[in-house]
Amino acid sequence: MEISSLGEFGLIKHLTEKIKTGNSSTLKGIGDDAAVLQYGNRETLVTSDLLLEGIHFDLTYVPLKHLGYKSAIVNFSDIYAMNGQPKQITVSLGVSKRFSVEDLEDFYEGLKLACEIYGVDLVGGDTSASLTGLCISITCIGEAPPDSRTVYRNTARNTDLIYVSGDLGAAYMGLQLLEREKAVFAGEKNFTPDFAGKEYLLERQLKPEARKDIIRAFEDNCILPTSMIDISDGLSSELLHICTQSNVGCRIYEDRIPIDYQTALMAEQFNMNLTTATMNGGEDYELLFTIPLKMHEKMESIDGVNLIGHICEAEEETCLIARDGTEIPLVAQGWNSLK
Amino acid sequence: MEISSLGEFGLIKHLTEKIKTGNSSTLKGIGDDAAVLQYGNRETLVTSDLLLEGIHFDLTYVPLKHLGYKSAIVNFSDIYAMNGQPKQITVSLGVSKRFSVEDLEDFYEGLKLACEIYGVDLVGGDTSASLTGLCISITCIGEAPPDSRTVYRNTARNTDLIYVSGDLGAAYMGLQLLEREKAVFAGEKNFTPDFAGKEYLLERQLKPEARKDIIRAFEDNCILPTSMIDISDGLSSELLHICTQSNVGCRIYEDRIPIDYQTALMAEQFNMNLTTATMNGGEDYELLFTIPLKMHEKMESIDGVNLIGHICEAEEETCLIARDGTEIPLVAQGWNSLK
Repeated sequence: MEISSLGEFGLIKHLTEKIKTGNSSTLKGIGDDAAVLQYGNRETLVTSDLLLEGIHFDLTYVPLKHLGYKSAIVNFSDIYAMNGQPKQITVSLGVSKRFSVEDLEDFYEGLKLACEIYGVDLVGGDTSASLTGLCISITCIGEAPPDSRTVYRNTARNTDLIYVSGDLGAAYMGLQLLEREKAVFAGEKNFTPDFAGKEYLLERQLKPEARKDIIRAFEDNCILPTSMIDISDGLSSELLHICTQSNVGCRIYEDRIPIDYQTALMAEQFNMNLTTATMNGGEDYELLFTIPLKMHEKMESIDGVNLIGHICEAEEETCLIARDGTEIPLVAQGWNSLK
Repeated sequence: MEISSLGEFGLIKHLTEKIKTGNSSTLKGIGDDAAVLQYGNRETLVTSDLLLEGIHFDLTYVPLKHLGYKSAIVNFSDIYAMNGQPKQITVSLGVSKRFSVEDLEDFYEGLKLACEIYGVDLVGGDTSASLTGLCISITCIGEAPPDSRTVYRNTARNTDLIYVSGDLGAAYMGLQLLEREKAVFAGEKNFTPDFAGKEYLLERQLKPEARKDIIRAFEDNCILPTSMIDISDGLSSELLHICTQSNVGCRIYEDRIPIDYQTALMAEQFNMNLTTATMNGGEDYELLFTIPLKMHEKMESIDGVNLIGHICEAEEETCLIARDGTEIPLVAQGWNSLK
């Protein structure tokens, strides 16, 4: 059977569905942003990500320092999505002969900068040769919040409000921009395209941040989301994860999805559907979460989040309400490297 | 600067020497078999390994089920080397189009079998496409022993006795055997070489075990090694790690190094130096550890370990005493994928 016939999530499900956990220290295994472990009296979070050259990044336009930074951030984001704090990472690299010591120094510089800013320790890893390309594997260990305040994907409830942090689609438009410039300047070695007025898109693609500030704001304002996930594969895909695992439906409103003006402008220039870019673009590393209806007022004290819809019963299905009122069923077109 | 000029350990040292840790939950960062973390009142161990096709394994003669098993074992071994118990793993895979769903099922079968036998839970990971070959990254989390009984590399002391579990060199000879048969049968698709009488060598290479039993025996007999490391890169290399990090020297005796008769026979057939194979062969996944002199008698109750020498002062350097009494300085020829 070809792997592409199952897709990424289908494959993971197929390979892992019969896996049971047996150790008392395993509170939650496969199926959320991070595994939840309990050693002694405190919960611990663990998440791993694999980034492969040519699949997840293109070194033609991604500087190694940025790549180091982003590799760390994507893992931190998974820990924040559990309402936890990233504390340690291990980094394994496979490097081909094409890379110099200075290249790896650049990568580590970005990695260390991210660790410094987010208060994370680099505690181990592995470095080896690879036949082709660069292979990056990072595992992040985090501290779960005390008093069972770890937030899962499968606990959204009917009538909860759905919020998203930041804005969506910019990282995807940044990628389109870089890909276009790469095609335009194909063959030229030191091409210097003009990105004026599009800095935000590039930053979102090349140097994303994880939403540590939102987790902090939850704590400061005594807000506990009922469910949470980070948006790495696009809003549609992540919202479907929450709804499927929580056994609920949802309604989100097209006109409420937060979009930066640079994203909108670029979509127009590229003649791309803006809603598709924001719903399925991916790599936004924003937090998508649900809040009990009665906490609505409390949420007004948190900056940088937007109410985009609400949870309903499973029978009502998962829909996007378009500007003209049409109900469009959500489809997980999220980024799938296996197709 | 070319990476090969530094080698694996040189490169890791170069990239990580200025890294400091800042979180109170980080007890030990880079530099041992595993990092040591403390969440709540219990120590946790974390280790990561990256295995790349064409560098760490050759699918011409390594069945995927065996590869899954071995990928897990090499990580468990790192946790045992800290006197801990492996409890969870996360598994990230990068797979090219060449692999089918059935291939990955085989890999997972081996992985799950190892987890079952060693009492470890598979709790997460990542699966994505790769441009070429198979890329496996595993992180293992383990439970440290209570009462600060975690064993490090840098705590061997003058006059300690040096022990090693099992026998050495067999995995390396198994690899030589497989490589030779591959060369002989080059081009033939379903080659079935005759491995009669060499089963042990193949087993050591293709389906190694981690020494859970030795850690158990330590506990049962109230023995606490002063230092410990697992032998993945060869006896020389690992003993040098212990001596350098503990700031001591050592004397080990050639005639005391445990060798299986199949290993000796194969070395003769291949006209290879047996001592070189055992000192630098690698992939044995045995435990190398030091014990205070006064615990000598207690050690006699433990099966499957051999006394091979003793720790001395740093000024006396690190030497192998050959059968004829010659002192040969130890050199880390250990496996280095970067050269």
